[in-house]
Amino acid sequence: MSKPKGFEKPAGVRDYLPFAVEKLREIERRVLDCMAGWGYCQIMTPTMEYYDTVGVASSTSDQKLFKLLNNRGTTMVLRSDMTTPIARVVSSLLKEEPLPLRLSYHANVFRSIEEEAGKEAEFYQTGVELVGDNSAEADAEVVALAVASLQAAGVSSFKIALGHVGFLNGLLEEAIPGREDVQQELKARLLRRDFVGYREILARLDLSAGQRDELAGILKLRGGKEVCREALELSNNSLVQSSIEYLSAVWEALEDFDVARHVIIDLTMIGDFSYYTGLIFEGYAADIGFPVCGGGRYDKLLQQFGRPAPATGFSLKTNRILDGVDGLKVGRELPVLMQYDASNRRRAYVEAERLRSEGRGVRMQLVSGPDELETGDDVITLVSF
Amino acid sequence: MSKPKGFEKPAGVRDYLPFAVEKLREIERRVLDCMAGWGYCQIMTPTMEYYDTVGVASSTSDQKLFKLLNNRGTTMVLRSDMTTPIARVVSSLLKEEPLPLRLSYHANVFRSIEEEAGKEAEFYQTGVELVGDNSAEADAEVVALAVASLQAAGVSSFKIALGHVGFLNGLLEEAIPGREDVQQELKARLLRRDFVGYREILARLDLSAGQRDELAGILKLRGGKEVCREALELSNNSLVQSSIEYLSAVWEALEDFDVARHVIIDLTMIGDFSYYTGLIFEGYAADIGFPVCGGGRYDKLLQQFGRPAPATGFSLKTNRILDGVDGLKVGRELPVLMQYDASNRRRAYVEAERLRSEGRGVRMQLVSGPDELETGDDVITLVSF
Repeated sequence: MSKPKGFEKPAGVRDYLPFAVEKLREIERRVLDCMAGWGYCQIMTPTMEYYDTVGVASSTSDQKLFKLLNNRGTTMVLRSDMTTPIARVVSSLLKEEPLPLRLSYHANVFRSIEEEAGKEAEFYQTGVELVGDNSAEADAEVVALAVASLQAAGVSSFKIALGHVGFLNGLLEEAIPGREDVQQELKARLLRRDFVGYREILARLDLSAGQRDELAGILKLRGGKEVCREALELSNNSLVQSSIEYLSAVWEALEDFDVARHVIIDLTMIGDFSYYTGLIFEGYAADIGFPVCGGGRYDKLLQQFGRPAPATGFSLKTNRILDGVDGLKVGRELPVLMQYDASNRRRAYVEAERLRSEGRGVRMQLVSGPDELETGDDVITLVSF
Repeated sequence: MSKPKGFEKPAGVRDYLPFAVEKLREIERRVLDCMAGWGYCQIMTPTMEYYDTVGVASSTSDQKLFKLLNNRGTTMVLRSDMTTPIARVVSSLLKEEPLPLRLSYHANVFRSIEEEAGKEAEFYQTGVELVGDNSAEADAEVVALAVASLQAAGVSSFKIALGHVGFLNGLLEEAIPGREDVQQELKARLLRRDFVGYREILARLDLSAGQRDELAGILKLRGGKEVCREALELSNNSLVQSSIEYLSAVWEALEDFDVARHVIIDLTMIGDFSYYTGLIFEGYAADIGFPVCGGGRYDKLLQQFGRPAPATGFSLKTNRILDGVDGLKVGRELPVLMQYDASNRRRAYVEAERLRSEGRGVRMQLVSGPDELETGDDVITLVSF
């Protein structure tokens, strides 16, 4: 373990220089404005939370939580998402507020990572939570708002993939009932998009040809609305059937919301958060190699904080969008350079204030002789030598 | 140590509900816009830094730093200010950029505190650093920008108190040379504004009547420009003289910058950061019991990161201003409630989008029968039952 040098920062975190900051903050502003347009109000929560409450409920694996101790020796965590802290606030400070509640946020979140993986230990999310509405309509609203938010962020070409955690759970429980370990193994392959590995496990299992076809068949269940019909034919399991009917209802609402062209069905998706209980979705942009947003329904999380309520929501991966989006035009004009000598200081200041009131940036620079003068387009010179 | 309950958050941190967030973010936006008007570009740095570099250089006492370990077992800290991380960036990512550099930031910073004290463990700062200019003009620019920033934040009645770390150092070194411990004790009293305790120490010391009068005399050195003249008469020490001459030059520039009426001289100020080397200042608002901003010159910090350069800057205590300021008007109109039944969903969505494009917020709500309908001013109802 070598001592870090003066210029080093920890692995997995980054500095944002002015051009990047301007773009990131413009994305943030546009997306939050979009969310406000849909009636979502912004809240902010602390960076640190108690491990025993928010940390444990967060569904981030224990070794990925950044932990620290406060003065009393209580373990705290750096928040790993915003959904869990917001569930805490809805159940405490906002417990008298009637449901449904529409809340938005822009925040940095933290995951302790293997430094070698090149993954981010601190990153930005902009998102919403819709708490207290258990309808397919509420899920459709959140998906439609994800579409509007990506457009507001300047992402021009993208698809939102919809899935449902009930579909796979029903199918696996029917095909290989009680075999938790194998079910988990199959899900892990799907989460990693390792379809070859998924088929290999199926081949090893003691299954009837019909069961094997059924489980292999889900890999084809990606596409438009027709996927729902194909999925209904795959199994009579009641959880499978109700999950697909729910997905179909969401799709219909999305057609009325005029965003169905941005949406596909992908029943191989299983959702990367353990608190998801129903519809799940992920957004993929043409030029960005990672998901740019993710969300879903979590109807059991709020009860852990003492206010049982259904909920759904999503978050944009804001800094991934920053890195991947070229469509967003930002950048105010470069500041004017106002150079002056001491005898003209008052005049220079008055002129600078006038330009600032017109929206120009002005940086002031005292000069003491002709050799210090700069030249250029955006230079104003007020000297008496 | 009891286990925290579900609704608890750690001591010293807070949740911001929508009304407070809107106000805080409006202050943030206005102040950053003001700083951009003066040619300052915004940067962002990570929440976590290495203890051995930024933590040690930060001048926050070790027991007030929040520490945590990364996966490699290296100690990290939650940043306790933004000045030190920006010094790191200026010396690394920005090391090819010509000086002077004008940088701004809005960020949360962290101090581990005794929970009983009711102090904040996480709070917000909005500030600037002007790196690479050692002139009184640069200090005056930063003070004038502090005035403009407080005005932009909606603080109507305030004073900025100016001091200089050289003045007291010169006076103490002349009066009680080499007695570091007593000098520190006197400074500690001044930092706490404990003038009675300061006089008690003076009474205990073995001093000539002249020396005692000189050291007691500084307690009167608070007021307008005339304080500089009085201070010059107090001692012939060269550090005292040069410090006061520097303060006078800053004052003259502030007169040309038309902000002298917001400024007082307070030579009892000693600055709460050990990295300050020259001019220091603090802002006090009429209705707020704590300083609302603080800053000063720090000409030795950058060299710790390998790029020696003079620098000056300040930060606003943004959330203190939020709590203390009533003058700022915020709040968009409450969102319209658009209630509709399934047969009118498409129409409701089109109408909602039209209102959003006009800047109105619209929350949508599916209703299934007349008993679910809400009434009110901002309600639009599209139903066919």
